[in-house]
Amino acid sequence: MVATPQNEAMEMPREPLESRTIVKVREERRSEAADWVVVEEPLEIRVGGDALAVIMRTPGHDIELAVGFALTEGIVRAADEIGTIRLCAARPEDEPNVVEIGLAPGVRFDRDELRRSFVASAACGLCGKASLLALATRAVPVDSSLTVTQRVLEELPDRLRAAQVTFGRTGALHAAAIFLRDGTLKICREDVGRHNAVDKAIGCALLNREPLRDTILLVSGRTSFEILQKAAVAGIPVVCAISGPTTLAIETARAFDITLVNFLRDRAMNIASRPERVLAS
Amino acid sequence: MVATPQNEAMEMPREPLESRTIVKVREERRSEAADWVVVEEPLEIRVGGDALAVIMRTPGHDIELAVGFALTEGIVRAADEIGTIRLCAARPEDEPNVVEIGLAPGVRFDRDELRRSFVASAACGLCGKASLLALATRAVPVDSSLTVTQRVLEELPDRLRAAQVTFGRTGALHAAAIFLRDGTLKICREDVGRHNAVDKAIGCALLNREPLRDTILLVSGRTSFEILQKAAVAGIPVVCAISGPTTLAIETARAFDITLVNFLRDRAMNIASRPERVLAS
Repeated sequence: MVATPQNEAMEMPREPLESRTIVKVREERRSEAADWVVVEEPLEIRVGGDALAVIMRTPGHDIELAVGFALTEGIVRAADEIGTIRLCAARPEDEPNVVEIGLAPGVRFDRDELRRSFVASAACGLCGKASLLALATRAVPVDSSLTVTQRVLEELPDRLRAAQVTFGRTGALHAAAIFLRDGTLKICREDVGRHNAVDKAIGCALLNREPLRDTILLVSGRTSFEILQKAAVAGIPVVCAISGPTTLAIETARAFDITLVNFLRDRAMNIASRPERVLAS
Repeated sequence: MVATPQNEAMEMPREPLESRTIVKVREERRSEAADWVVVEEPLEIRVGGDALAVIMRTPGHDIELAVGFALTEGIVRAADEIGTIRLCAARPEDEPNVVEIGLAPGVRFDRDELRRSFVASAACGLCGKASLLALATRAVPVDSSLTVTQRVLEELPDRLRAAQVTFGRTGALHAAAIFLRDGTLKICREDVGRHNAVDKAIGCALLNREPLRDTILLVSGRTSFEILQKAAVAGIPVVCAISGPTTLAIETARAFDITLVNFLRDRAMNIASRPERVLAS
């Protein structure tokens, strides 16, 4: 494998965290504060000039990521099948979010065969903004006049835990639940995949013809782009999570008028988008 | 949308947990014990007869999952674009791991356009066993005589936390680290994606031409099929995790001779595969 000095030099350190202004809610006090948020951006992997995959990742060590991905996902069978590799930008004004892999002489791979074995998990675009633009072709800002009290939100984590029948026995399942504005739990679903738990809850509502426009989605873990994307397409106005958001989750929430509540635990929360839907009491 | 009674009836409740025999290690005591493990199996989603996606999921509520996935990933734009939906088995002797969606009359979708926007994340097959068989075409059982002491393993979580520069500030990053048998940390990488952190660590080793056959991989979260798949392809003999495994992770570890250590915390651990590589002292 050729990792030339100029390739390495192109991988300028990028900060994995960026600051975002959020609203901290602590009992009766609300204050705007800067918070460190994990960066999430798409990385496109090209092989022989063809775009093969787009991965949502935290920037940094991108050439390592592409090499590891190429090996472990079967694009190459050994490191020496990679002839050249470089990190570049799709356009001069973009961030370097593309890794181009050139195969070593004589190495072939069956692009169609490989793609058939890839699992769906939507993301697109060459920067966060492009991902939002692509999402805008199939989702509109959430149209909901829902408001919910802080007290109701504070009680949701306990209600989720009470409904999680399986988690306690294994510690390895994600949960997603849909609540009404008074805190009534309508649906709770668990899955080994975070996104699957959300899809099951949304699918259940669709099958039962239950509208989602005045509901609250709570997820047991973090909120990344894909969770907010799913909420936007389903038209859910309030998304809450026990743990933190990514930059792109915050930007998606803001672009689609979704209230995003993170670190909802111990009767406190941080609100990164549309805090006016959360009433003080 | 037509969810006919026989469709619903086909969705027989399947247990999200199964029992597996593992080795519990508590100080000087080792004992075999049955443990509840989250089930992980592939679900294939077919639209108009074409296989469109394979998702790793916990069985149960599979029609809901397929409906939610179809909407939130842009296969359909509204629930009424789904004409029929049913859960079935690829072959009579298989588990029901296929959902067939029939579009409502007049509804079209651009399959190629949709696939272009899907992110890579490898999985394949119609049951766990098929996934293992597919993996066997590009990975062989790990060939390593590595042994490691229980004491060294017990110290790894603290070493990982000390190396996680970013996590403490956000609580939203996964980490993967590669250690030598004496506990020396060689590589630590963080990412918003669990699999990305592993790919970065493996990619770093490849770029530095550092062999992985006598190393230990520690991940900060859970171990699912994909983590074990990546370890198998990279030839890593010992995989450890702070949290739990899935059924398919255990089966992959056993099939590829990987030692799988879970719940590695508070000086204790559960070993689900190849415990003989972990020495008592």
